[in-house]
Amino acid sequence: MLNIALDTTLVTTFNPRSLLYLFDMIGIVACSVSGTILAKHKNFDVFGCLLVSIVTAIGGGTVRDVILDRHPLFWMIDMSYLTVITIASITMQIFFNPNSRRVDKFLKLTDTIGLSAFTLIGIKVADSMGANVPVALLLGVITIIVGGIIRDMICNEIPLVLQQEIYISAALAGGILYFALYNLGVAVWVADICTMSAIFSIRILAIRYDWQFPSLEWRR
Amino acid sequence: MLNIALDTTLVTTFNPRSLLYLFDMIGIVACSVSGTILAKHKNFDVFGCLLVSIVTAIGGGTVRDVILDRHPLFWMIDMSYLTVITIASITMQIFFNPNSRRVDKFLKLTDTIGLSAFTLIGIKVADSMGANVPVALLLGVITIIVGGIIRDMICNEIPLVLQQEIYISAALAGGILYFALYNLGVAVWVADICTMSAIFSIRILAIRYDWQFPSLEWRR
Amino acid sequence: MLNIALDTTLVTTFNPRSLLYLFDMIGIVACSVSGTILAKHKNFDVFGCLLVSIVTAIGGGTVRDVILDRHPLFWMIDMSYLTVITIASITMQIFFNPNSRRVDKFLKLTDTIGLSAFTLIGIKVADSMGANVPVALLLGVITIIVGGIIRDMICNEIPLVLQQEIYISAALAGGILYFALYNLGVAVWVADICTMSAIFSIRILAIRYDWQFPSLEWRR
Repeated sequence: MLNIALDTTLVTTFNPRSLLYLFDMIGIVACSVSGTILAKHKNFDVFGCLLVSIVTAIGGGTVRDVILDRHPLFWMIDMSYLTVITIASITMQIFFNPNSRRVDKFLKLTDTIGLSAFTLIGIKVADSMGANVPVALLLGVITIIVGGIIRDMICNEIPLVLQQEIYISAALAGGILYFALYNLGVAVWVADICTMSAIFSIRILAIRYDWQFPSLEWRR
Repeated sequence: MLNIALDTTLVTTFNPRSLLYLFDMIGIVACSVSGTILAKHKNFDVFGCLLVSIVTAIGGGTVRDVILDRHPLFWMIDMSYLTVITIASITMQIFFNPNSRRVDKFLKLTDTIGLSAFTLIGIKVADSMGANVPVALLLGVITIIVGGIIRDMICNEIPLVLQQEIYISAALAGGILYFALYNLGVAVWVADICTMSAIFSIRILAIRYDWQFPSLEWRR
Repeated sequence: MLNIALDTTLVTTFNPRSLLYLFDMIGIVACSVSGTILAKHKNFDVFGCLLVSIVTAIGGGTVRDVILDRHPLFWMIDMSYLTVITIASITMQIFFNPNSRRVDKFLKLTDTIGLSAFTLIGIKVADSMGANVPVALLLGVITIIVGGIIRDMICNEIPLVLQQEIYISAALAGGILYFALYNLGVAVWVADICTMSAIFSIRILAIRYDWQFPSLEWRR
């Protein structure tokens, strides 16, 4: 169903803006669900789970915009963010099942879609505020990673996202590709789609084949 | 003595602004004392305890104002915040007794007064900056909760406030009541007093009768 | 080699601004190395370590500037911050040796130089933004301490800096000395050098002789 929805959007309008927005919302749902699951495991109450979901979903974008002094914040203007988070978190709390495998698979797909959308949005926002390339890449990484880090800090866990497989590296590769295409004069919507596809593919392949970024340690 | 002071204010001036300010300061003292106690248990030194107190007391309001881009921050203009926090924390450190029951009772009362004042202030500030109702409610919750969450993150504890009894829910109920009364055209000071009384009563009753917000889990 | 470089700067130009900048960068290297070491111990990957380094090195200054509403942030204008952090973190990751004693000694010296520079910069920035003396002192302490606290929160450790020997107290003593000299009409560069020397000396003596700030506890 998810794929059909995406295809329809692609076929009918082929508007990368609305596609980016759709992917953004899918990422918001993924963050909200993952926040609720971890909060549930820590026995947080209804509003505790909801708050952790909100922080996970919009924490990264909020920190990015505060660093860039970009006000008012995106979730204060567009109420769909808080609405989608609340619905996703409440639904997840009602149908919560700690041993569900299906949620795990669902999360892997949606989180990867979110990763590609969040990175691209973060980079575009930073670029539009006049940040140079390294700062824009850093702010793209902040957009994808800070929500999950605050979630893990609240729940007293060590952030998995900093230990695990290709995650920040996929975002960075996509970001560098974006600026390369941009400077080559490629149309913005082509650069957008290439960037998101690249991030999505690298991350999915990394999960599938269990890729790891090589350690830099120099062993004597 | 506390009650007499409150009554006097009520009788002599009946100015809800100054009452709100007094309750705000009582809440600041409560946060400062609770921060110092937890920091003491973690063997922080004098300035470590003071810093945790400061973060607990003004962290929520600071995050709210940064999100709203409301500068300069309240505690930079009105020095009574830092003064009250410092006096409360130093006093607590001098007369610290880990097994004291009296402090526990004192904290429950003052923290509840602070809860009602912080929520109301957070909502009013967000409203005055043009935030809509859901955003104002969220920022009210952020005002009461973020200080304690950062305190618990620094001290490596899982935030009790997200697990426990009616806390966020009392604040939300009060906030909804505030906007309901406001839209009904009730005078502001009446809405203020009703909101604070409602939050205070719900929270005190929740502690007294050990209320819990029902879990949303749907068990088959 | 380090001392020679400093001496040359002092002898040839005697420009406290450039000396302060050099000390600032030494502090940035110290934060970056300490962040990488802790992240390595938690098995973070290459970019995880780099991110923790960045947060440790510029987290304090970023929070200070966000609180003061001072935009754009210093590390967005001057790219040497991100460059130095990246080089220091990558070098540390390549030549990482968990049992090295030399790194420990190197860190104690560089961290103390950084402590004196960060405090002075924090106080000067806050002062230039119109903050009064207590707020400027608090923002000086925030500059030196918040990066390390976020590093420890991410890595699930209790911040050592809040428990340990004379650290915040050295910064506060230096800050008070700065404002005292400033009000006595002493030239700014003299006040700068005195402040940094005082913080450096107090901290080094505290490490050498294992000084502790007396606990305020009043024992019956």
